[in-house]
Amino acid sequence: MPTTDGGRVVDDLKRLAEFGRYKTGVHRPTYSVPDVAARQWLAERFAEAGLDPVIDGIGNVIGRNRHATRRLLVGSHSETQPHGGWLDGALGVIYALELVRAFAADPALAGLGIEPVAWADEEGHYGNMLGSRSFTDALSEAEIGAAESRDGKKLRLALVEAGYAGRPRERLDPARYVGYLEAHIEQGNTLGASGERIGIVDGIVGIWNFWVTVSGEQNHAGTTEMRRRKDAAAALVRLASRIHDRFAEVAGPRTVWTIGRILIDPNAPSIVPGRAEMQVQFRDTDSEILALFERELQVLVTEAERAGPCDVALAPLSKSAPAAMDPGFQLLIERAAERHAPRQHRRMPSGAGHDAQILARRMRSGMMFVPSLKGISHHWTEDTKVEDIVLGVQVFADAAAAILEAR
Amino acid sequence: MPTTDGGRVVDDLKRLAEFGRYKTGVHRPTYSVPDVAARQWLAERFAEAGLDPVIDGIGNVIGRNRHATRRLLVGSHSETQPHGGWLDGALGVIYALELVRAFAADPALAGLGIEPVAWADEEGHYGNMLGSRSFTDALSEAEIGAAESRDGKKLRLALVEAGYAGRPRERLDPARYVGYLEAHIEQGNTLGASGERIGIVDGIVGIWNFWVTVSGEQNHAGTTEMRRRKDAAAALVRLASRIHDRFAEVAGPRTVWTIGRILIDPNAPSIVPGRAEMQVQFRDTDSEILALFERELQVLVTEAERAGPCDVALAPLSKSAPAAMDPGFQLLIERAAERHAPRQHRRMPSGAGHDAQILARRMRSGMMFVPSLKGISHHWTEDTKVEDIVLGVQVFADAAAAILEAR
Repeated sequence: MPTTDGGRVVDDLKRLAEFGRYKTGVHRPTYSVPDVAARQWLAERFAEAGLDPVIDGIGNVIGRNRHATRRLLVGSHSETQPHGGWLDGALGVIYALELVRAFAADPALAGLGIEPVAWADEEGHYGNMLGSRSFTDALSEAEIGAAESRDGKKLRLALVEAGYAGRPRERLDPARYVGYLEAHIEQGNTLGASGERIGIVDGIVGIWNFWVTVSGEQNHAGTTEMRRRKDAAAALVRLASRIHDRFAEVAGPRTVWTIGRILIDPNAPSIVPGRAEMQVQFRDTDSEILALFERELQVLVTEAERAGPCDVALAPLSKSAPAAMDPGFQLLIERAAERHAPRQHRRMPSGAGHDAQILARRMRSGMMFVPSLKGISHHWTEDTKVEDIVLGVQVFADAAAAILEAR
Repeated sequence: MPTTDGGRVVDDLKRLAEFGRYKTGVHRPTYSVPDVAARQWLAERFAEAGLDPVIDGIGNVIGRNRHATRRLLVGSHSETQPHGGWLDGALGVIYALELVRAFAADPALAGLGIEPVAWADEEGHYGNMLGSRSFTDALSEAEIGAAESRDGKKLRLALVEAGYAGRPRERLDPARYVGYLEAHIEQGNTLGASGERIGIVDGIVGIWNFWVTVSGEQNHAGTTEMRRRKDAAAALVRLASRIHDRFAEVAGPRTVWTIGRILIDPNAPSIVPGRAEMQVQFRDTDSEILALFERELQVLVTEAERAGPCDVALAPLSKSAPAAMDPGFQLLIERAAERHAPRQHRRMPSGAGHDAQILARRMRSGMMFVPSLKGISHHWTEDTKVEDIVLGVQVFADAAAAILEAR
């Protein structure tokens, strides 16, 4: 079994967090100066560990292992959310680096190779999981040409400035790997609330997004009698309220749904709103529940449209497929967790998206969670206890070894 | 009976609309260069009509009539909303000017004097009905010192630039007047929908505004289980929906209510909202209905707070008192309307605020409406048929004469 050095992992995480440090967190958007410097630093660490590093045309950093006969691809992303946490993404990359070192140090693991990877732009500054999609042939040149950041910077320009433009994009050879493994902070408080220390991800949720537009008639809030009004906001709050009620009735045990974005036009106290819009999102690992939710949403929108006096329209925005994690990988992660943290682990879905859902389309994949303090995520106060970081990397290494050794 | 010249009224309205013309409307904010020029132009017209004009320290333009023994104060405001209509306010001021001329031309009306007034800032660029409140001793120097425009310009500075600073503010001597009369466009579509041409205002609504704040807990929309959420937006849409339902049950025949402004924080599709706020407004001429609505709102907020999981707080923003128009004035306006437009008039509340509600606190006051095409208001497309403008001024003059002649 590989022996990891938890202190070295924490030191490397702290060093990586220097790139773009913001308070106790990190501000390191994809292709920013600190992000490019961090990727260079990671490539150097991969080389130090005896690998052939490559930073490809989309910014993925991969450490190639020439000598192994069986290989596991292991990693996560290295950019952060704006003013984000120091571990989100970084933890899985440094875990992968540590696995490389631990495997190399153990003669019993000869021939078993970890190839670490730091994906580019999982956080979606310019797109949606650009790096892992590029690696799995799911990102076209046309999409790259059209992509831009939220503040309007072209992806092509960002790649030129980063120095990545013109480089080939590395592509997956599935025959090269036994599979893909990713460690990540939980980003929620399920483990924290139960006092557990390791999460074995059974699936990554599909995320379905819809946009609801209510069209009424803008009017003066003093001179327009109630019976003449077509108040778009009144129709929207009624519909939103029914959506929450109905979804609660048909939800599975871990379905989540959110109406997080509501726009009222003109949103002035003395004007009857003429237009109101909202985004309705739901997530589940079960495709049938996602489809059921969509049908229920359609029914409620149709009812609202029929009830009048406003027009109500529903448009799909995006539907990502749920991704099941490999059952064999789950079992081996679970055994490793039981060895080091008996009865302090659980199987659970990932409610957030991860590069593993992209890789899972092409090969066997697995994911492991460590707890997030108070469940805080995408914020500079995000953190994880040092003992959980240290425990996690050993469980992860044991699981990787077991996966590579399994025939 | 006075004889008005409708063509002259329309010509004057068109001339006044040149000050700040915007498309077919007018952009003439209070104390802007075109507003100051328009007030000067009005003062000159008042002088031409034989009056002693004064522009006072807040920008009110008043035409003093030295000779009359019984006087009626007649007017409206002369600034406009941003990119507003050409008649809103202006119509009532030019009607007042025409009444001055029509009365002066009729020897039978000797001794009966119209004093025309163009109030400053009814539209609230710097405050709330500054001119009429100044005139009725309801505007303190402290409030003037603190007031600023929505874009942060100090009222004091605006008054200096307009050339009004340092002038005395004219104050009402109630003994000088029989009462106050104001003509205005309806700003709604009640007259238009019924084909009527004159509205006799029975009261101006009180407008009560409340701010509702829902405090929950901001969380990740993927990793936070439903049972752990405190979704402020979900609580808000449920409460807003109940407010609409409950208000509909207890409303009077002309009560109106509006939830026109909703703020969700952070208003992002994948974040459970931690905070949600809304403004709840209702209007009625009946104080008891306003008080009933406030009680119902308090009950619903308390229920929402008890139901949890979010905190819900209610804060009053403003409560203006309804203003009854003088019943005797209403009757005389109605008789004049019946003479010139039989069965094409109605008594109705004003759902919008007007200077008349301020004047009504100090003396008998009356208001008359002419129709607004399609009910459009506070927009540069606002308009009224020429024949309605012409009819309106004659009805208004007859009513004014009847009021002045009544003992």
